[in-house]
Order: sequence, then structure tokens, then C-alpha cells
Amino acid sequence: MTAGTLVLLRHGESTWNAENLFTGWVDVPLSEKGQAEATRGGELLRESGVLPEVLHTSLLRRAISTANIALDVADRHWIPVRRDWRLNERHYGALQGKNKKQTLEEYGEEQFMLWRRSYDTPPPEIEPGSEFSQDGDARYAGVDAPRTECLKDVVARLLPYWEDAIAPDLRAGRTVLVAAHGNSLRALVKHLDGISDADIAGLNIPTGIPLRYDLDDDLKPTNPGGTYLDPEAAASAAAAVANQGR
Amino acid sequence: MTAGTLVLLRHGESTWNAENLFTGWVDVPLSEKGQAEATRGGELLRESGVLPEVLHTSLLRRAISTANIALDVADRHWIPVRRDWRLNERHYGALQGKNKKQTLEEYGEEQFMLWRRSYDTPPPEIEPGSEFSQDGDARYAGVDAPRTECLKDVVARLLPYWEDAIAPDLRAGRTVLVAAHGNSLRALVKHLDGISDADIAGLNIPTGIPLRYDLDDDLKPTNPGGTYLDPEAAASAAAAVANQGR
Repeated sequence: MTAGTLVLLRHGESTWNAENLFTGWVDVPLSEKGQAEATRGGELLRESGVLPEVLHTSLLRRAISTANIALDVADRHWIPVRRDWRLNERHYGALQGKNKKQTLEEYGEEQFMLWRRSYDTPPPEIEPGSEFSQDGDARYAGVDAPRTECLKDVVARLLPYWEDAIAPDLRAGRTVLVAAHGNSLRALVKHLDGISDADIAGLNIPTGIPLRYDLDDDLKPTNPGGTYLDPEAAASAAAAVANQGR
Repeated sequence: MTAGTLVLLRHGESTWNAENLFTGWVDVPLSEKGQAEATRGGELLRESGVLPEVLHTSLLRRAISTANIALDVADRHWIPVRRDWRLNERHYGALQGKNKKQTLEEYGEEQFMLWRRSYDTPPPEIEPGSEFSQDGDARYAGVDAPRTECLKDVVARLLPYWEDAIAPDLRAGRTVLVAAHGNSLRALVKHLDGISDADIAGLNIPTGIPLRYDLDDDLKPTNPGGTYLDPEAAASAAAAVANQGR
């Protein structure tokens, strides 16, 4: 028996992506462009016949809306849904709400890239009760929520959800859609493809283009690196992401 | 301990409502008016502070979209979701896709009202493989799906889901949103309020206006008939529904 098919979908542009702000756990909506990206993602699912049977999302609106739009277009709006904070974007700590370009200018290239791309250096923690912290947000009741995260932290909090919630759906042979974020998906791809702590820095996942992994019984990809449903668009989008903040 | 709060939300106008067609299990989208109704429903939730902690929907797009829109407006897009065919609209059998006014003219007032409002007279069954049947639809795989239903049939297939899925959420003290359809909600209200088979014919539930039930430990309403979050709009909308097909 073959295990299921995993489809990763990074949310489309949010209003804060458009303004070039660090977002993290701040729950901003999709921009119009982001909604169009989600629609295109749904069309790619439909056209390719990769039809999700279950959805996993984060607790953040930009991933949830992306999935809602894409699944509606693909006529799969009715599939079961699970949501979990462990699929959230990396918590960007005290950088949340700050402009990326200004942060680059203020702290310099080295520090900026360390925060953005190093595996184990988190930004400073967000102040308790500050404007863009998640304090008092009902969705995190009972969760020992982080105040900042590096990618290593994201891997550590993501993997329990992968094992406990996503992997069982795949072992049941299902086609599983994970609609999430740049860094939670990088964490997942790092695990799937066995990418080193150093090499993951160079990996960008484009928005709105479903990335399909066919998995064997051990949930290892039979197509390492996955297969984008629109490879050309993925290549040009990945290049654009790498230049953010410039 | 008090049991939870139940909030019923009938989907807004669909494209087929706008065209005055019998819809049943045909999976049509919301009209623009329907989307606006869903937005208003979300505003009422937000303004009244009735904040759902879990969502139950049917497998039909007009209920799913209504919930997605309303919960996004109410900032509750992140709550857990369950979907089940047992919350679907009444299956309208061979009438699905037919114009209500033409059906009234063709069959006469008595037969028309019998199909629309009698408790135990279903329309003729839909033909296997016909245009508006659900044959081959993956969402009903493994379901012994009906080919037509009267309201009595809807009550019979709804109650197991009420007992097994919704009631446990309420007994856990949660605020539960059920986003569904005119007849699946009438079936639920019949059960909640102990309405007779005869009297349920006169009950219309307006679209897009959340209906709150506060339940005691036996899941009986402490506010029989429920409380609309916008009572004036509910009264005028219910009157309009009663005149459909005229």
C-alpha cells in the first residue's frame, strides 16, 4: 500500500506582505492579490486532479482564507478541516509590525539576515501586552505560546502535529492539503527532504502554488523536493521571495 | 453547571434562491446578496458578543461559505469545524432544479404546499444519474444518501448527528454555531422546542440572522423559540419567506 499524497500551499500575499512588514503571528487578511493567488491555487488543484480529502491549517486568517478560497474553486470546500497553532507562521518576536526595509537599514545586513534566515537565532522576544503580541487571544488559551521563534523552534513545535495529526491521514492513504506559511512549510519541507540546518536557509517556498509530495510507506518523498503544480511560476516566484527587504 | 449556547445560522440567499428554483442538495453558491447577509450575520455575532467556539456545517457550499464569511467578520475564523451531510438541506427529489412558480402552476396550490410544507409527504424521487442528482459525488461516498426527503426524514437523519456531535460540544459548555439550511434548521428547532408535526409547517427561519438558544443541562431551551440577534429583521424576513413561490 502506498501512503497518501501531501499538498503544501503557502498563503497568498497578505496586506502586511504588501506593506513589507514582519507579520509572524499578527492575524492580517489576504490582499486582493493574495485572494487571486488563492484562486489560482485552487484552479491548479482542479486542473491537475490533485483533490484534497482533508485540510490542515494554522489558526491564522491568511492561511485559512487561502484554503477556503482554493478549496471552493477546486470544489472541495466540504472536506474535513483541522486547525492548529503548530502550523502558524514563525513568531517574529519584537520584529512583528516592523517594516522589513527599515529593519534592514536600522540593524544592518548581517543582523537582518541572521533574524530572517539563520536556523537558530530568534529575534528579541515581543513585550508582554504590546500591540502585536497575542496576549489574551482566545485561540491560544491553554497553549504555551512562544514570544519569539527561530526556524529551529518552528521545527520543534511543528513535528508533534505532523506525527500526531497529519501523518495518520497520510497513512490512511488520503490526499492531505496543508495550508500554512512560509516558515512552517519550510520547517515541514526540511523534515520531509532531510535538508540540513545550513541548507534550509536557501529554500524559499512560493505563495499560492500547490507543492505535491508523493510519499512512501515511511512517509518519505518518492519525488524529493516535491512537484509544483505550476513549476514555471514557482521558479520565478521563489526568486522574488529571496529578494524581499531589498 | 449550565450547558452551552447554541447559535443557528441559516445561509444567505443562493443564486438559485434568487432564481426561485428548488435547490435541495444541489451545491449552488451564495449570491452577492447572500454574501452580504453572511457578513451581516457575522457583524451580529461580533456586536452581541456571542462568539462561537466550534462550528458545525453541512456539506453544501452555501452553508459553508456563510459560516466562513460570518466567522471571519466575527474574528472567529480559527475555531474548530465539523461538517456532515446530516446537516444538509432537505433533499427535494425530482423537484431539484425546477422553478417554484412553474411547479406551483403545473401541480396546483394543494400539491405544491404538500411538497413544501407537509411533514411526511416527500416529492417524487430524483432519477438516478439525472442532472441534479448527487450520484458519483465523492462527498457522499459511503453515505446511504436519500433520493428525496420530507421534513420527517430530515428530522430522522439529523437527530443522530445532534446527539453524537453537537450535543457533546454543548454539554462541554461551548458556544456552538450550526450553519445550515431552512429545513435542517427547522428540523432542529422542532426537536429543541418540541413543536408538533402540524405546527412546524408554520415555522420559517430567516436567512443570515443568528438565532441563539440558551440550553439547560438537559439541552432544553431556557428561552423557548430562541432569541434572534436582530429580532426586527427576523420578523420581516420570516414573513417574506412565507410568501415564496407566490
